[in-house]
Amino acid sequence: MRTPLERFYPLIPAGGVGSRLWPMSRAKAPKFLLDLTGSGDSLIRQTYDRLVDLASDTVMVVTGESHANAVTQQISELRGSDIVLEPSPKDSAAAIGLACAILYKRDPEAIIGSFAADHVIDPVAEFQKVVREAVETAATGKIVTIGITPSAPSTAFGYIRARTSLKIEGAPSALAVDSFVEKPDAATATKYVKSGEYTWNAGMFVAPAQLMLVHLEKNQPELFAGISRISEAWDTPQREDVMNAVWPTLPKIAIDYAVAEPAAAAGDVAMVPGSFSWDDVGDFDAVTRLSQEKSGETLTILGDNQNILTQTSTGIISSDTQRCISVIGMENVVVIDTEDALLVTNRKDAQKVKDTVAELKSRDLTELL
Amino acid sequence: MRTPLERFYPLIPAGGVGSRLWPMSRAKAPKFLLDLTGSGDSLIRQTYDRLVDLASDTVMVVTGESHANAVTQQISELRGSDIVLEPSPKDSAAAIGLACAILYKRDPEAIIGSFAADHVIDPVAEFQKVVREAVETAATGKIVTIGITPSAPSTAFGYIRARTSLKIEGAPSALAVDSFVEKPDAATATKYVKSGEYTWNAGMFVAPAQLMLVHLEKNQPELFAGISRISEAWDTPQREDVMNAVWPTLPKIAIDYAVAEPAAAAGDVAMVPGSFSWDDVGDFDAVTRLSQEKSGETLTILGDNQNILTQTSTGIISSDTQRCISVIGMENVVVIDTEDALLVTNRKDAQKVKDTVAELKSRDLTELL
Repeated sequence: MRTPLERFYPLIPAGGVGSRLWPMSRAKAPKFLLDLTGSGDSLIRQTYDRLVDLASDTVMVVTGESHANAVTQQISELRGSDIVLEPSPKDSAAAIGLACAILYKRDPEAIIGSFAADHVIDPVAEFQKVVREAVETAATGKIVTIGITPSAPSTAFGYIRARTSLKIEGAPSALAVDSFVEKPDAATATKYVKSGEYTWNAGMFVAPAQLMLVHLEKNQPELFAGISRISEAWDTPQREDVMNAVWPTLPKIAIDYAVAEPAAAAGDVAMVPGSFSWDDVGDFDAVTRLSQEKSGETLTILGDNQNILTQTSTGIISSDTQRCISVIGMENVVVIDTEDALLVTNRKDAQKVKDTVAELKSRDLTELL
Repeated sequence: MRTPLERFYPLIPAGGVGSRLWPMSRAKAPKFLLDLTGSGDSLIRQTYDRLVDLASDTVMVVTGESHANAVTQQISELRGSDIVLEPSPKDSAAAIGLACAILYKRDPEAIIGSFAADHVIDPVAEFQKVVREAVETAATGKIVTIGITPSAPSTAFGYIRARTSLKIEGAPSALAVDSFVEKPDAATATKYVKSGEYTWNAGMFVAPAQLMLVHLEKNQPELFAGISRISEAWDTPQREDVMNAVWPTLPKIAIDYAVAEPAAAAGDVAMVPGSFSWDDVGDFDAVTRLSQEKSGETLTILGDNQNILTQTSTGIISSDTQRCISVIGMENVVVIDTEDALLVTNRKDAQKVKDTVAELKSRDLTELL
């Protein structure tokens, strides 16, 4: 009989442009393909490297068709049958559900783990320890979220309430989940953090593939039927034909609504807390903070532009051009220079970048997105 | 007998890159060729328009050879013999001295007036009234500076001390100049302004050509000899040959040292005060202030870029590209976008732009200057 880890298959849904990181993150070069921390590796490569040691066989990636080349360039180890290319965006339930169905067909005892392609986690060893606990917990028949121990009463994340130990061997910190809660206001967030009963929902979870499919079948029968058809054909010569025929018919829904929340209500969800540092690098304020925590410097320069001159400035300057850039006397500035677009803002207004992207969309300037 | 105005010849020395206005102002497109106020006209064209009504015959322009086309495009009225093209920069004494010598040869009773090509003055009628007084005063045998009534105790300009009325008919406000003083510190400037005896030295002056040449001959005999040789040949077919042979030998010196200060010591200098508003538009803070005084708006956008998106920002954005530019939450920002160079600073640090230019020079990045 195999241990839970011997049937563990991590998967990486790589979608989402990261519109608050415009104009660095674009439809053609989304956040997960960028090296936002100056580490030399893209976020998806870092995600893969964190997971590959834990994988019993392979790591699966689900991404948009247009990113096929970039992703295989980043992760040359990927086999063609382990990369699911979405012909069109269908939200997370279709993406993760299809990967589950494929893995379930290959290994009915598969335990899957879903990890976003564009988060930053440190240290890796601590993360892996938590995932191992989550895999042990999942093997008892649970959908296991990884809850991040809050470092502050953030209003940017949803929270997971969990209090009762599940007393699982090999997973001493696993708790039963009471409920998922949406992004709270500041007062509520403070109450949550003070109580010690809440962790951040980072969207990472581990579960038996079979249990995921049971919930999908119950809550989203149409979606379930579609991904079942595709998964039957996946490891056959009909893969592409069936994918192209069925994928466009799948309903668009987030995995949280399709599985996680109904499963929590049914008492099927557990949580393993993670005290590693975690960041979804949602905006340029986060990019700057992460870079500066690592470098200890107050001015971050990303990219290969050799012609950047600065005087008494702090913040972040990124350039993928070779234009001469002079920044003088700017505090906490954000200057993102690309061939066809330039952003100038400051760290505290970093969230508002999404409004610029919305404006570009409303003006139909799709080549800039 | 002619009136003083009937022998008045304005001249416009158009030199100086305006390095605090980089990267908008460049060696190839210096400040005087730019429309810094959004008026639709370059500064040199505005200068010409202020002076042409006062000219008895013509307005003369002295500028670098490389600007010949741009200047004649801006001022199509200019005759070839009224534009002095410097083969190399030789500072203001050579430029103004040669123009004086040419005009003196044409008209020994010429009264010349020298006015920088890149200042902003308003209202024009008030300026012209002051120039007329200066011409009347010059006709009595004086070098007449126009002193700007200080609007604040600025440390950015030199000052002119003048107290005693010259009681000249047609020039009731003309005073004798005691001395020129260099840019003062803040305390001294405050004292100057409080005393009512000091005006700003804006570098504008009116004088008999002959008197200018007398002082040049005395203080700079080598320079005088050179410009005399060129002026003899100017309105003959030998103009270019003699210019090219002699110009490179001329000493480099500012007109202030070569003429104005020694003449003041000799009691030959007068001052007519001007209470029109005057700005040398020395940096982007001044550009912004001037634009916003006119428009009443707190965000100035210069150039033809149609893809500028802003959120709650004040200051100035200039672009001669068509890149998409998003500026969010920036107060008093200065964003100057050109094809090969970008400046991001704020109004209070606008003076420091010259340090970037110095750095580019020290790195020998001449194509960026």
